[in-house]
Amino acid sequence: MGKHTVIFRNQPKILATATIAGPKESAGIVGKYVDKQLADDKFGEDTFEKAECKMLTYAIEHAIINAGLEREQIDVLVSGDLLNQIISASFAARDFNIPFLGVYGACSTLAEALAIGASLIDSGYLKHVMAATGSHFSTAERQYRYPLELGCTRPPQAQWTVTGAGGFVLGKEGDIAITSATFGKVVDYGITDVNNMGAAMAPAARDTILTHLKETGRDPSYYDLIVTGDLGALGSRILKDLTWEKGVDIGKNHVDCGEIVYKVIEDEFQGGSGAGCSALVFGSYLFDKLRHGGLRRILLAATGALLSTVSSAQGESIPCICHAVSVEVV
Amino acid sequence: MGKHTVIFRNQPKILATATIAGPKESAGIVGKYVDKQLADDKFGEDTFEKAECKMLTYAIEHAIINAGLEREQIDVLVSGDLLNQIISASFAARDFNIPFLGVYGACSTLAEALAIGASLIDSGYLKHVMAATGSHFSTAERQYRYPLELGCTRPPQAQWTVTGAGGFVLGKEGDIAITSATFGKVVDYGITDVNNMGAAMAPAARDTILTHLKETGRDPSYYDLIVTGDLGALGSRILKDLTWEKGVDIGKNHVDCGEIVYKVIEDEFQGGSGAGCSALVFGSYLFDKLRHGGLRRILLAATGALLSTVSSAQGESIPCICHAVSVEVV
Repeated sequence: MGKHTVIFRNQPKILATATIAGPKESAGIVGKYVDKQLADDKFGEDTFEKAECKMLTYAIEHAIINAGLEREQIDVLVSGDLLNQIISASFAARDFNIPFLGVYGACSTLAEALAIGASLIDSGYLKHVMAATGSHFSTAERQYRYPLELGCTRPPQAQWTVTGAGGFVLGKEGDIAITSATFGKVVDYGITDVNNMGAAMAPAARDTILTHLKETGRDPSYYDLIVTGDLGALGSRILKDLTWEKGVDIGKNHVDCGEIVYKVIEDEFQGGSGAGCSALVFGSYLFDKLRHGGLRRILLAATGALLSTVSSAQGESIPCICHAVSVEVV
Repeated sequence: MGKHTVIFRNQPKILATATIAGPKESAGIVGKYVDKQLADDKFGEDTFEKAECKMLTYAIEHAIINAGLEREQIDVLVSGDLLNQIISASFAARDFNIPFLGVYGACSTLAEALAIGASLIDSGYLKHVMAATGSHFSTAERQYRYPLELGCTRPPQAQWTVTGAGGFVLGKEGDIAITSATFGKVVDYGITDVNNMGAAMAPAARDTILTHLKETGRDPSYYDLIVTGDLGALGSRILKDLTWEKGVDIGKNHVDCGEIVYKVIEDEFQGGSGAGCSALVFGSYLFDKLRHGGLRRILLAATGALLSTVSSAQGESIPCICHAVSVEVV
């Protein structure tokens, strides 16, 4: 076992997923695979924050149903989101009578939750763990950037926070396994442009992906896909260059959830981002390919930018992280 | 094994701790036990946020030294704090070349981090895990309440966020063990007074403590101390009443870190709070009693209020949680 990579002896399984997507996301590649397409991005609530929480609650509830389980059979919910004090996860957890572990890794939160959940299952402590995360364009804009009402122009290197959520039920039985997890280190290349997350996060993705390949003794070709969370088009190109510099070519099998979730016109924007981005794409489109053929081995390497408006205002650069889990049909 | 409680087969150990306290805290019971007393609550930094991060970094660095280890020997850092996007933990993690798992449980974060860290050690995946958390009065006031410059009057039921941090090195060898962990559920009694956290959190503490005692088949008297994190004086009395209502008397051996960290005059305020409260008191005063005699069995049950300024502004009540770990001299 490498220092950063845990190889799971008992190969915990992903029993089922459930995803929900906003209107813009539903029009994209994930549309036909999600459990629910939203026509109203307020989901019938009076605030976007309550809508985000309701979406996460929906994903958790329906993942349990899709797994054929009862709420009482979920031993722990591991969840987080982008909002201050991860209120979407905390308030969603309030609706379920399930022990709750709050986690925060920005847009890497899903991979972190899957890694912690898989560890708790693999060790035999727990039978079923729910990993879930989500995000909402309008809550993220308000909290991290500007009020939508200002109608600020978005620079071309900007990304679009995904309105979506995904829930993942982990257990012992099944044929889609989480075979290993690589815990990421914080990497900071000194990027201070909060509109250029892809560039800020790419070095963290390289660090974790190369660490994973080295510690598992695997070549990139071992995986059908090396999936990053939300580097976007520019960040993905930077990642391929950075890994190429280290003598590793992931160009043939790399795909980024943020790049495929929308139809990207790179002059306008770089694609999707947010804790819900990898949850939505992996939980719907990619998971369907694992279940029904087309994909057998995925490395999900989700990155997160660990900044806050306060750290940026105080002149800090953007520390980033990437956690990875290998998901294989066994 | 109960549904919420994990009994650790290999009894992961707390190898060492390190704590740092602000001026007000250093004047109290923990003063003579901390690794560093701060005379300047800005710790030489130009902002309180940077001071909070520097304190957490100090606690992590010196816990490693106190354990007689090198940074490279710590496999994972599990940490969180009260600031938006847990920037103190994230930026502290940036300074160490250690994989990082960000967690958030408000003032219950230390217990959550110890529970996750102990699970990762006990399962044999990792050799050494660092659990660390901290808080700072001035950053918490600015973020959750009012700018200090306003000089707002504090109501008598209010608590005082502890300026302090603690780091805990977990490993396999030693005689102070984490023998079990009980993961808490979110409990919401409908309290909306953000100045009355003790009342809001007490029901969560009762739920987890009674669940732990039931699932382990232990009587409160099994423990020398049942230690809550920061219920304060009022919250502690509410907890004793709530458990008494359920036929369990913890009055004889209950103590609250927030109640003992300062000299409490209840007409003025209820005591300390914050993620650093239990880290500071448990990591210094209580850990010294475990190491040098006086205490052999502690149940550390740290509570957290999972609200945000946005959730309060939108009329939400305060969901709370309590995670518990049993720490025993073996």
